[in-house]
Amino acid sequence: MEQRLSLVTLGVADLDRARAFYEGGLGFARDNTDDGIACYQLPGLILALWGRADLAADAGLSDTPQGFGGFTLAHNVRSPAEVDAVLAQAAAAGARITKPASATDWGGYSGYFTDPDGHPWEIAHNPQWVIHDDGRTTLS
Amino acid sequence: MEQRLSLVTLGVADLDRARAFYEGGLGFARDNTDDGIACYQLPGLILALWGRADLAADAGLSDTPQGFGGFTLAHNVRSPAEVDAVLAQAAAAGARITKPASATDWGGYSGYFTDPDGHPWEIAHNPQWVIHDDGRTTLS
Repeated sequence: MEQRLSLVTLGVADLDRARAFYEGGLGFARDNTDDGIACYQLPGLILALWGRADLAADAGLSDTPQGFGGFTLAHNVRSPAEVDAVLAQAAAAGARITKPASATDWGGYSGYFTDPDGHPWEIAHNPQWVIHDDGRTTLS
Repeated sequence: MEQRLSLVTLGVADLDRARAFYEGGLGFARDNTDDGIACYQLPGLILALWGRADLAADAGLSDTPQGFGGFTLAHNVRSPAEVDAVLAQAAAAGARITKPASATDWGGYSGYFTDPDGHPWEIAHNPQWVIHDDGRTTLS
């Protein structure tokens, strides 16, 4: 198995609500026209929103009430001020701020929000990592 | 907020067990040396394994028993035969096959496994998507 990731799919209760958050609220632009699933081309991989029950069934898993999903997504930015700005944008779009931005013990600055379905996003500035011009993030 | 993803962190109960699966079983190579967290450089973003309780606390969320996490990760490959090969490799490494590979209604071929902590990976061949030489996946 090669060391790579092609697609992250988030299960959502209401696709229209989720699209309103990601597109209207955060400014993402949808890159497909299929019914029932929304795809967003990111640098190097795809993010998709799809019905939670359909996603669980597709994976051969039992759907369960949403708790902590055992994962986080992170969006790294180029400065602490940009962390504050993105968290403010997410809050204005209806996100819940689960951890206000603060200095971290690894020398950066970050906070978290959850989207309308409870999926957690960390917005972080990590001065040790590199964000390339096209948005790809690398460890060095 | 720019349309991009920097890091996916999977919460794990036992980092040594998780590393053995991803490194020994699937062949990933670790790209950091910090204690307590394992980072893997993927094309364009980073995958990390970190203690589940630490991850939940960092995100300001309550840890809960693992159910369906409301997300899936997908690894797209270049042929149906490669889907079968990767699923066989994962099974040999101790993964649970939650959905054996089969033809899909979108014209592809895919199956799913879960890692030792229950995180679902789809291994898929989608003839409509493009996998570039460096492993990046794009919709067209």
